Amino acid sequence: MLAVGLMSGTSLDGVDAALVEITGVNESTRVKQLKFASYPFSLAIKAKIQAALSVETSDVEAICSLNFELGRLFGEAVIKVCQEYGIDSETLGFVASHGQTIYHLPRPKETTRVPSTLQIGESAVISELTKTTVVSDFRPRDMAVGGQGAPIVPYSEYILYRSENCTRILQNIGGIGNATVIPQHGQLDQLTAFDTGPGNMVIDELCRHFYPGEEFDRDGAHGAAGHVDPELLATLLEHPYFAKPFPKTTGREDFGREYVARLLTTYRELNLAPEDWIATATALTAKSIAQAIDQFAIGETELIVGGGGSYNPTLVRMIAQELPQVKVMIQEDLGYSSDAKEAIAMTILGNQTLHQQSSNVPSATGASKPVILGKVTYY
Amino acid sequence: MLAVGLMSGTSLDGVDAALVEITGVNESTRVKQLKFASYPFSLAIKAKIQAALSVETSDVEAICSLNFELGRLFGEAVIKVCQEYGIDSETLGFVASHGQTIYHLPRPKETTRVPSTLQIGESAVISELTKTTVVSDFRPRDMAVGGQGAPIVPYSEYILYRSENCTRILQNIGGIGNATVIPQHGQLDQLTAFDTGPGNMVIDELCRHFYPGEEFDRDGAHGAAGHVDPELLATLLEHPYFAKPFPKTTGREDFGREYVARLLTTYRELNLAPEDWIATATALTAKSIAQAIDQFAIGETELIVGGGGSYNPTLVRMIAQELPQVKVMIQEDLGYSSDAKEAIAMTILGNQTLHQQSSNVPSATGASKPVILGKVTYY
Repeated sequence: MLAVGLMSGTSLDGVDAALVEITGVNESTRVKQLKFASYPFSLAIKAKIQAALSVETSDVEAICSLNFELGRLFGEAVIKVCQEYGIDSETLGFVASHGQTIYHLPRPKETTRVPSTLQIGESAVISELTKTTVVSDFRPRDMAVGGQGAPIVPYSEYILYRSENCTRILQNIGGIGNATVIPQHGQLDQLTAFDTGPGNMVIDELCRHFYPGEEFDRDGAHGAAGHVDPELLATLLEHPYFAKPFPKTTGREDFGREYVARLLTTYRELNLAPEDWIATATALTAKSIAQAIDQFAIGETELIVGGGGSYNPTLVRMIAQELPQVKVMIQEDLGYSSDAKEAIAMTILGNQTLHQQSSNVPSATGASKPVILGKVTYY
Repeated sequence: MLAVGLMSGTSLDGVDAALVEITGVNESTRVKQLKFASYPFSLAIKAKIQAALSVETSDVEAICSLNFELGRLFGEAVIKVCQEYGIDSETLGFVASHGQTIYHLPRPKETTRVPSTLQIGESAVISELTKTTVVSDFRPRDMAVGGQGAPIVPYSEYILYRSENCTRILQNIGGIGNATVIPQHGQLDQLTAFDTGPGNMVIDELCRHFYPGEEFDRDGAHGAAGHVDPELLATLLEHPYFAKPFPKTTGREDFGREYVARLLTTYRELNLAPEDWIATATALTAKSIAQAIDQFAIGETELIVGGGGSYNPTLVRMIAQELPQVKVMIQEDLGYSSDAKEAIAMTILGNQTLHQQSSNVPSATGASKPVILGKVTYY
């Protein structure tokens, strides 16, 4: 059956749409990517989303309206990716939509709040535009059984990457680095998932600081041109996050703009060149990933790197050097587009839902049991 | 199959839960009420809802959290109504939940907004608590085909009340009066629904004004004790709403507190006694209902009055006097509890959804076509 998966991430870049052919269910699921496209958000929509996700600038009318407006954009993305492949969206078996997260509150500090999460992009609108059944809103059901509603992709990673021949570790490098470990011959309940620490976040922030207009270290060029400062690297690796027990999660609050600003002030006297700062930050990401992965690389192990960081060869090379016993690859080596991975993951989750099968991974989210994720809007 | 319908209305009183036995689908649907209960909201929850539905006091975190918190309350209501009947909620075939409307924007004035509606009360939480499949969020799908997402109950009224022997008109009298006309031998697409004008709103407001602490005219006692002022009544019936063509809707903005305050000032010199004011307001509601109904009372016609106004015998008597050719009854005469009607309606909508059948009424909502309403959260 044909299906389109939609992913709209926290970067607010736009919506990713993956057209796939999907068959089977549970362990027998097979997915083949037919077409992938990213449709960027307009500045106006980006501004509306940014206003909706902040406590200070959000209100109920704006959220109510934006839910329907995003539903339309998501539906149009489905129609476009189908057109680009030369089919009508009504021939799809289903659409699976992640939605735009506008709030995620797994562990509220205030006693007046309860653990909760909120994704928008009205499925009823997607369904009408595409003339197709829509599965949406995957995270709340995991949270209703005590999970954090995240990570949401490990089930699809298990389906796509599990191996009888080796341990496979999926290392995604976005702003934050996160890993999913699938042991050889492993069952779903043996999956482990955790954040390794910073992904591109520190590198990107240093690029913006030293090279105004450069949002990231393209092709790892600055990192490759610099020298790693071993003492600074050792100090940075003393960050308390790296010593925390698994499973663990981190975010912008630990390794974001404030963290980098503090580093630049504290280590000003080292007088490092910009390239050396970036090389050292790249080594920090690489080494923190390698230290975490090392504990799970039992027997023959493949590390499959995805996300924006997989396009930074300096970073990938440093990770490989730290893990000589591990075969390090990037998603493209296995025939998947790294960009498309999460949108494809949604089709696997949606397929499970329509078969009334579970697709959360309790060992990854902390949920008390497997549950059927998502809501079905029948066309 | 057993099912529970949940309704949580704009009055913010609490959540109504109706346990029913439901069989069949479409025209063959049969529903029997087994148990009905209302569970009032705590003051704390009421305050949170009130904050969430106002543009000024709402924010994304509060809405995100309240969605899950209400899901819990709704789930607990299901468990309680089942306990009161002596069964476990897991024996239910499904739960159908309307949700709490926190915003409804069918015709936005600002160009930056799109037609939209927002109901909360997370179905994933209801599903986990009740161990049952949940159907929820019925209004957005109608809006996605150009409908106003309201009224939502005409389909269930058609199922429960259509007759081969007569025209049946359902007159609900809440704050506003609204009618659904089901012609004899009528098909679904021949239904008409509209607001007749004020329901209890003007009467209630006058009671609060003249008798502090009295929220409504209990048993129609004040209205019965007073005399209708025919000239004032004639003037009030010149309100432009009554001359508008069908279908039409009105609200608090036309007949609410400001309207009543204006009347009391404008007609101060009449020196009417409080009972006469209330009698005249009761006649206004009765006459505006009768004038609207009269146009649809073709052949043998039954008018079935429900809502809070059906418990005001002065009002019901005045309506009957204005419509001598019509048989006027209240819901209880047909064996239904007027309070339970909307919660029962949800089970009929949910049943349609699970059978992948439509349940909006385009002639009532303005939708371009019948669609399958709601979202299914499988347990």
